[in-house]
Amino acid sequence: MRRGVAWIISVGNELLIGRVVNTNAAWLASKLTYLGYSVRRVVVVPDEEDDIAEVFREALGRAEVVISTGGLGPTPDDITNLAFCRALGVQPVVNQEALKMVREKYEARGYPLTPEREKMAMMPPGAKPLPNPVGTAPGILYEQGGRIVVLLPGVPREMEAIFEGYVEPMLKSRGPPVYFAEQMLVVRGVPEADVAPVIREVMKMDPRLYVKSHPKGYEVDAPLLHIHVYASAEDRQRAEALVEAAVRQLKQLLVAKFGDRSEISTGQGLR
Amino acid sequence: MRRGVAWIISVGNELLIGRVVNTNAAWLASKLTYLGYSVRRVVVVPDEEDDIAEVFREALGRAEVVISTGGLGPTPDDITNLAFCRALGVQPVVNQEALKMVREKYEARGYPLTPEREKMAMMPPGAKPLPNPVGTAPGILYEQGGRIVVLLPGVPREMEAIFEGYVEPMLKSRGPPVYFAEQMLVVRGVPEADVAPVIREVMKMDPRLYVKSHPKGYEVDAPLLHIHVYASAEDRQRAEALVEAAVRQLKQLLVAKFGDRSEISTGQGLR
Repeated sequence: MRRGVAWIISVGNELLIGRVVNTNAAWLASKLTYLGYSVRRVVVVPDEEDDIAEVFREALGRAEVVISTGGLGPTPDDITNLAFCRALGVQPVVNQEALKMVREKYEARGYPLTPEREKMAMMPPGAKPLPNPVGTAPGILYEQGGRIVVLLPGVPREMEAIFEGYVEPMLKSRGPPVYFAEQMLVVRGVPEADVAPVIREVMKMDPRLYVKSHPKGYEVDAPLLHIHVYASAEDRQRAEALVEAAVRQLKQLLVAKFGDRSEISTGQGLR
Repeated sequence: MRRGVAWIISVGNELLIGRVVNTNAAWLASKLTYLGYSVRRVVVVPDEEDDIAEVFREALGRAEVVISTGGLGPTPDDITNLAFCRALGVQPVVNQEALKMVREKYEARGYPLTPEREKMAMMPPGAKPLPNPVGTAPGILYEQGGRIVVLLPGVPREMEAIFEGYVEPMLKSRGPPVYFAEQMLVVRGVPEADVAPVIREVMKMDPRLYVKSHPKGYEVDAPLLHIHVYASAEDRQRAEALVEAAVRQLKQLLVAKFGDRSEISTGQGLR
């Protein structure tokens, strides 16, 4: 396990046949990044117990925070909770608190508690169910040796509600390992290949700094680059100062080298 | 290596900090599925040589077709070609055909061939460069023991142009292992948990059949389900017949069980 490292596991055949774009992973990656975590993998696996258990085992050995989405619902292929138990080498148990959450949701509308519904309350012994304010399947929180694993449903509004309601506050209260800051520089008229040595130069300023160019135009005919500058540091001020110094340096070098044929502006294109 | 299995590798920090949604993976997954491949993993890795080499090694042992996107450009963090060589255990060489492609693009506009640009022509010995009709970095095709690895740029219009121009025709000419067919059923007024046993029943019809419900409404208050039925088979007729039989059976069972409170329609929500 590496401190500050996060993995995201996305479960669902619909992602692997290209029917659904993995917006959940991007949303979670952005949240985790701002919470100070370094997301090192997003792995998409099919609704198969072997595949899901395998990637959980891998993630458990490498990451401090593991978040999965998908496979918590009532249908036969919703098996993420069971596969996670297999990865841990434990038998799933019916969590009484979770069962109460599920039962109340259905009974309030006059639906009975079927085995399919009861399955949504199964989790590893010692896990904590996270209330789902939007849908019926609770999220699952499992902590072990300083490692945090969270299983969330795949429906975006359910996933987001549980993350913002329970997971984000918990990760914040643990104290994020680092802070994240970013800025965007837009450069017109200079091919990416010419900007490359300048970027290399600026990145030497500090190992916590990252500078990445994203070509948005046509390299040789109408070059347009978004240069994303970001840094992680132990406090917000330091992260922001690093990014500001880098952007200043980047601008200076670009103007000195390409001033006559470039156009540089900031801020655009940022989330 | 498993016949018919494909892995997608997405390289780029921008995907792991949530700045960019991985639409490339969904686009490729859809293409590969229709070409008859079963995509078993999408793995997103950072712009780090260790991480990229590791996931290529893993993919090479498991998949018949491996497609990567990102990290082929001229900037210092574009290292997918070099990391792939490391995964193969070979030294990268300058491919003369690729160098010619890169040189011509730049020289036509009066730009010199810098080391950053030359890097885009580096690949494993025996690899074949794939012309990039939109940008400057060629794609890379590498075949070994019946296994196909394709490295594509991360800019979507470049990735798509190279895939449709060279990769898709090549995969088609190899004869796809299977054909893919699908239909969508929209069901209003029945909670997903009640549909689950019906889906389980229908899936028993044939092992090549897959039925998956996607909740789009609110489980207990206003249930709305998209039920996606799909199948892969050795020829198109068989795949389509399987899906049609399953949809017919699904409708029959749903009407018999929930006819009074359900509303069923087909076709909606499909790509």
